Formats: sequence, structure tokens, C-alpha cells
Amino acid sequence: MTYKLNKYERLDDLLTHDLKIIQDEREFCFSLDAVLLAHFVSAKKTAQGLDLGTGTGVIPLLLSLRVKKIYGIELNPVTANLAKRNVVLNQLEDKIVILEGDYRQIANLPLPEQFDFVVANPPYRPSKHGDVNIKPGVATARHEITTDLDTVVAVAARKLKYHGRFAMVHLPERLGEIIVSMHRHNIAPKRLRFVQPKRNKKPNIVLIEGVFGGNIGGLQVDVPMIVHNDDGSYTEELLSYYYPAN
Amino acid sequence: MTYKLNKYERLDDLLTHDLKIIQDEREFCFSLDAVLLAHFVSAKKTAQGLDLGTGTGVIPLLLSLRVKKIYGIELNPVTANLAKRNVVLNQLEDKIVILEGDYRQIANLPLPEQFDFVVANPPYRPSKHGDVNIKPGVATARHEITTDLDTVVAVAARKLKYHGRFAMVHLPERLGEIIVSMHRHNIAPKRLRFVQPKRNKKPNIVLIEGVFGGNIGGLQVDVPMIVHNDDGSYTEELLSYYYPAN
Repeated sequence: MTYKLNKYERLDDLLTHDLKIIQDEREFCFSLDAVLLAHFVSAKKTAQGLDLGTGTGVIPLLLSLRVKKIYGIELNPVTANLAKRNVVLNQLEDKIVILEGDYRQIANLPLPEQFDFVVANPPYRPSKHGDVNIKPGVATARHEITTDLDTVVAVAARKLKYHGRFAMVHLPERLGEIIVSMHRHNIAPKRLRFVQPKRNKKPNIVLIEGVFGGNIGGLQVDVPMIVHNDDGSYTEELLSYYYPAN
Repeated sequence: MTYKLNKYERLDDLLTHDLKIIQDEREFCFSLDAVLLAHFVSAKKTAQGLDLGTGTGVIPLLLSLRVKKIYGIELNPVTANLAKRNVVLNQLEDKIVILEGDYRQIANLPLPEQFDFVVANPPYRPSKHGDVNIKPGVATARHEITTDLDTVVAVAARKLKYHGRFAMVHLPERLGEIIVSMHRHNIAPKRLRFVQPKRNKKPNIVLIEGVFGGNIGGLQVDVPMIVHNDDGSYTEELLSYYYPAN
């Protein structure tokens, strides 16, 4: 593996199957949430998927291990370029396609018409909610400046085949809006899992998956995922995402 | 406390503040779900509430300990009559009013115009879903024969004052429908709690509370309630509902 890092860039190890990722410290760097989402999504080995707002490409990199092909769209040219370099770095050009572009105008992007699944780790907070980071790339990843919840759900619905699946990671406090938006765009919620920092702490992350054109009803709610044991160490389940047994 | 039991009737102890309840074994007898709901609902001491489908009155009996007044409506004349006797048995005539009637025609019932809160432990399953109990009173309590999810939410919305609260217990698998129905009737979900039989078992009950006229967003998701410890004994929290410290 040969690579060259520019100023402010760093090479991180995804700790699974030798995957590496270059990130830029001036931009938004991926978090646990993206890793959880990549593991949560239901997809067959033959599936073709789309990641809306892929950042440096962490979700496509992780999903490349278990699906046929994944496209990632990124608006920020700096991170889109890093995502492209990360694909080359990991020699995954046959499985991952990164497009720099705006998914609000998805019809203009050179993409397959429909996908088996769509994933998104969108900005969590409304644009006027809380402090907005002074780094523009970080602000747009965290706050709904260039997209919002209903937009990402609408775009997912548009690109899903009938009974295709949409998976998203978000804040539990917005679950009401998420379900209403999914319903509006004909996506029926089918799997729900909360993530708690510890077993006696309220969930701070929600994972949700829905089926385009599915019947509402039959939502499967899983046992919550717990990140830390009571003593502060990582739980076995969390560690299994980073250091798989096989 | 003097009482007379008819054939098939039994006297149960609510195990808190000396509350007793007569039930009829041929009818639907209250379950843990009603007790959980009575503890979950947010209500001030001065609040006036309404229980839609009160059965033998277990929720009004438990809520009488912490609110000013509560009305219970019951369609089944046998259980409505038991609920009325339970009010007398516990000498709670000043706090609880039981009405035999159909809340689908709520405008015809002699009730206050608006309430601070409405609660419901409605039938959980669609009418054509699974085996229907041959006892009609049990069937209507479990299956959506005389009411359904959207009806109970619509009636609650109609009887709530602005920013009044609606609390319901239901199946986790129907959470999508619940949130969509609440949104349709202008009730914003604000509190959500799942109940798990054990900490490694999926939730089998969901408790949800919404605010009429509230803004969607700001849903507070609590740590799940666990009913049994790993060794099968009841958890401290569950026991606190039955044997309060004070």
C-alpha cells in the first residue's frame, strides 16, 4: 500500500480487513455512527447501494466487504477527493464509485436508475440549532445547511427499487420526524435499534431501516446496542465491529 | 372494606396503597401493561384525565393516587359495571367517574369538554391478525374489533386541551403506525420507553406520550425498562411499582 499524505491529512486504520482511510483534520472525520450504520444495513452480497453524503467514503469502504457495488455522493470537494483517493488506496475501484455532486439534484448525476439499498449518515441538527462549527466542511456535515432530514429521505425514496431498503443513523430525539418523513415518502419503517453509551444511559444514536413500498406495521425493535460496559471498556459487540473474528 | 363477589369474580390486590380490584374471570383481566402505563403518564396533581377503554378501572384506580380526577369509559357493560363497583369498593367516588359507553361516539357522552391528559391501553392486534379469543369481552380487549389505533388517537386528540398529553401502551411492532397516527391528529411524540422482559430480550411493550399541538422533534427516549433480572426475579424498578417505598 503506497500513499502520500498532504499537510493536515492523516492515515487511519479501519481495523478490519486491512482497510485504511485518509482523512483531513480540517474537515469532518467519520465517527462511530458511520461504522454502526455500515453494520446495521441489511444487504445481500449481490446488492448495489448508494451512500448519500459519503464524506471520506467510510461507509462504502466498510460495505465493500459484503455487497457487490456501492456508489457514494459527496458535495464537499475536499472530502469527495479524499474518498476517491481512499478507494484507490484500498484498491476497491471495482466495487466503489465516488461522485462529487449534490444529491438534491440527483437526476443530474451519472448513477444507475435504481438501487437495492440506500444509506445515509446525514447532518443531525437543524441549521439554527446550537453552535455551528466554523469549519464549513464540518458545519455542513453536522447541521442541516445543504440538506435536511426530509430531503435525504425523499432522495432515498426516489432512488430505491420497489421493496428496496433505506437505512439511516440519526438522533433519537428526531425519531418522530424520521418516521413521519419516511411515511410521507412511502418508506415503511421495519427495523429499529437504539445505541446507548452504557446500559444505564439513555440512547444517543438511533439506527432505522425501512422498505420502499412496504406496508406500515411489523416494525422489529432490537435489543439496544450498548457501547461501553459498566467499567468503561468497550462491549464485545462493539469490538466485533472493529476486530471481526473471521 | 366490604364487598360481595359473584360467581367467576375474584378480588385482586393492586399491592399499592391498599387498592383492591374485582375482576371477572370470563372477561379481560388487567395486565402488567396497564400498570406500566399508569406509572408512565406525566400528570400534575391538579390534572383531570380520561381513560379510553378503562376495563375494570385499573388505570383510574392507580392514577387516583396522583391526579385530581379521572374519567374512565368502557364499552363492555360487564366490565364497566365492575369498574363502577371497584370505585365504590375503594371509596374513590370523588376522584373517579366511570361511564359505560362507546368512545367512538364521544360527543354523546356526558364528559368535560377537554382534559389535561388522555390515556389508553387499547387492543393491540388488527382484527384479522392471529387467533381471536372466544370470550367476546376478551376478544374486543385484544383485537381491533370495536376500535382501532387511529380511532383511539383521534378521540384522544379531540378531548385534549392545547398542549395536553396523550399516553398509550402498545406493541413495539406498531410504533411506526402509532407515530404516523399521532402526527395525523396533531399529537407530537415527546416521550418513548420500551419495556424488555429481560435485558437481552427484545422489547415486547412500548410506552409513548405525545403533546397535542406540540412541535414534532425533541422526542425523549428513555433507558428501556427491564422487567426481570437475568436470574428471573423481578427488577427493583418493576417491584417499586407494586411496593412503593413511601
